[in-house]
Amino acid sequence: MLAETLAAIRPADPRAIAEARAYQDRLTKPRGSLGALEEIAVRLAGAAGATPPPMPEPAALAIFAADHGVHARGVTPWPQEVTVQMVANFLSGGAVANAFAAQAGVSVTVVDVGVAADLPEAPNLVNRKIAYGTADLSEGPAMSVDQAVRALEAGIGVARDLVASGARCLITGDMGIANTTASAALIAVFAGRDPAEVTGRGTGIDDETFDRKVDIVRAALRTNGLSGALTAPSDALRALAAVGGFEHAAIAGFILGGAAARVPVILDGVIAGAAALVAAALDPAALDHCIAGHRSAEPGHAAALAHLGLRPLVDLGLRLGEGTGGLLAYPVVCAAVRVMHDVATFDSAGVTEKTV
Amino acid sequence: MLAETLAAIRPADPRAIAEARAYQDRLTKPRGSLGALEEIAVRLAGAAGATPPPMPEPAALAIFAADHGVHARGVTPWPQEVTVQMVANFLSGGAVANAFAAQAGVSVTVVDVGVAADLPEAPNLVNRKIAYGTADLSEGPAMSVDQAVRALEAGIGVARDLVASGARCLITGDMGIANTTASAALIAVFAGRDPAEVTGRGTGIDDETFDRKVDIVRAALRTNGLSGALTAPSDALRALAAVGGFEHAAIAGFILGGAAARVPVILDGVIAGAAALVAAALDPAALDHCIAGHRSAEPGHAAALAHLGLRPLVDLGLRLGEGTGGLLAYPVVCAAVRVMHDVATFDSAGVTEKTV
Repeated sequence: MLAETLAAIRPADPRAIAEARAYQDRLTKPRGSLGALEEIAVRLAGAAGATPPPMPEPAALAIFAADHGVHARGVTPWPQEVTVQMVANFLSGGAVANAFAAQAGVSVTVVDVGVAADLPEAPNLVNRKIAYGTADLSEGPAMSVDQAVRALEAGIGVARDLVASGARCLITGDMGIANTTASAALIAVFAGRDPAEVTGRGTGIDDETFDRKVDIVRAALRTNGLSGALTAPSDALRALAAVGGFEHAAIAGFILGGAAARVPVILDGVIAGAAALVAAALDPAALDHCIAGHRSAEPGHAAALAHLGLRPLVDLGLRLGEGTGGLLAYPVVCAAVRVMHDVATFDSAGVTEKTV
Repeated sequence: MLAETLAAIRPADPRAIAEARAYQDRLTKPRGSLGALEEIAVRLAGAAGATPPPMPEPAALAIFAADHGVHARGVTPWPQEVTVQMVANFLSGGAVANAFAAQAGVSVTVVDVGVAADLPEAPNLVNRKIAYGTADLSEGPAMSVDQAVRALEAGIGVARDLVASGARCLITGDMGIANTTASAALIAVFAGRDPAEVTGRGTGIDDETFDRKVDIVRAALRTNGLSGALTAPSDALRALAAVGGFEHAAIAGFILGGAAARVPVILDGVIAGAAALVAAALDPAALDHCIAGHRSAEPGHAAALAHLGLRPLVDLGLRLGEGTGGLLAYPVVCAAVRVMHDVATFDSAGVTEKTV
């Protein structure tokens, strides 16, 4: 399923990009006056291979939830059971992601890819559990390569199912206490950065915990022999398995699945940024279908976006995860594409162009 | 009507602000993890005097259109008739503001406060024309103080009518070829900046035109004797009349009208920023009801926002006007308030708080 998905991904279509750029300049507005929104519309035209690109409606948020063996090392003040408690909160509609999704008209699906507890069945919960949390990445691989592939394929499957149900835009979400530690390790490896540069304070930690977190990320890279550059997709799978979380792997698969279906994927924050580095290492063309929803307050996120060459749309100091940043960006993406569908041209509206 | 409106404006309620802050900390998210959105929700609670503040739905965009005598001085490559052509484009739904408004579910009303042509009647067009454009601000006052007050009152009336029709959020919009020149002059006067610092390239001008534009703004301040600080509301009215546009005056009134009705006003770009400086000079409490929608690419806008102490929500390089920046911010504002209505507390959801 992974190989087949990778084979289906097409890079952006340069003809559609050129057409979209030319069309933007005919619309009744000064050239370039929509700033980043023009780039988004052009990017999605390239991804879809069509000008105008299809409206990215409706959209579906998938929140991939999992636990982390490294939690035992004291990298966060939040107890591990908050993962399962927040899954219940998502399912009952009480979390911030639910409020943002309701506001934007986006459906919410929660995917258990590795929560450290059995979860009762629920209508919007998909059970794709790989294990009851990863192993401690600072003592050895967080998961086996086989588990990493299965988590990737879980994400691919969720993307496929959502697109089959009508979604025309996918938004990444995550829940997993301690998952910014794994994100920092992935970003250090895939973007070639020092752990101290890309480790952040997650949902709020003191200086002592922060120093421990950096040391643990360093230990994870050392223990797993991840000092060199990644040169092959097999290296990427091994690195993902060594220091990733099940939700990182699943989100990487979700990105690949969206790209294979030519449906745009809006990335949330630092967890999605780490996952996108993995997806891009498996197939760089997958990135052509991604939009960076926002820039989180985590330093590793900026490093990931810089490595990916993505510019975030929203920059409001969010550091929550769950898909909240992607959900805030979604109306902006819709507005950018809608311009290509609805706005009159200078000719059709009888508006005089500027006299240079 | 102006005096009565000013008398009705109440400053933010400190009790509601304190309650909103405390309530934010009980919601199922790490404290402060929603960044600027928490501040928006708290701000609107203070403005409304209620926690949670009412949802800002539905919203209404008013696009105030007018022409400018200074156009004759060659400050823009766009012919003056583009103002009336774009009004027609708004009314037929073909402009970018229409696309963004449709995406966000916002109504669009166009208000003629000074277009230099007679406009045919149309369902969404309100005729509050003060004159067929202002006089040239570089040769004397752009309008009389009486005209400025009438334009302010036109804006107040539009705000009142929209709120009476059910609007619970107002968004400012503008159309007027050459109106960034008047904006630069207003910002120079009201924020106490040098014209060269706050004059921009509007919808796109070359170096020669830019230099001329700065000279004209300088001449406007000199000719109208606007070198000193503004110390009284009567000074503000005189300065508005001297270098403003009818749309600036009307938007200032629209802000005051929204504030008096305790309905939040989302400011668009540099024209709204200039108008907000005028509104704040008439009553600083009006600002408590304003949200800066975005930061435009015009340098004067950043100066206006800094003077007003407002932080823009969206920063995507837009430089179009029409209300487009405010419309992009509107879903963010809704999401911020919705959190206060929908999200569960740690207690109600049974989520464990962090241990520290």
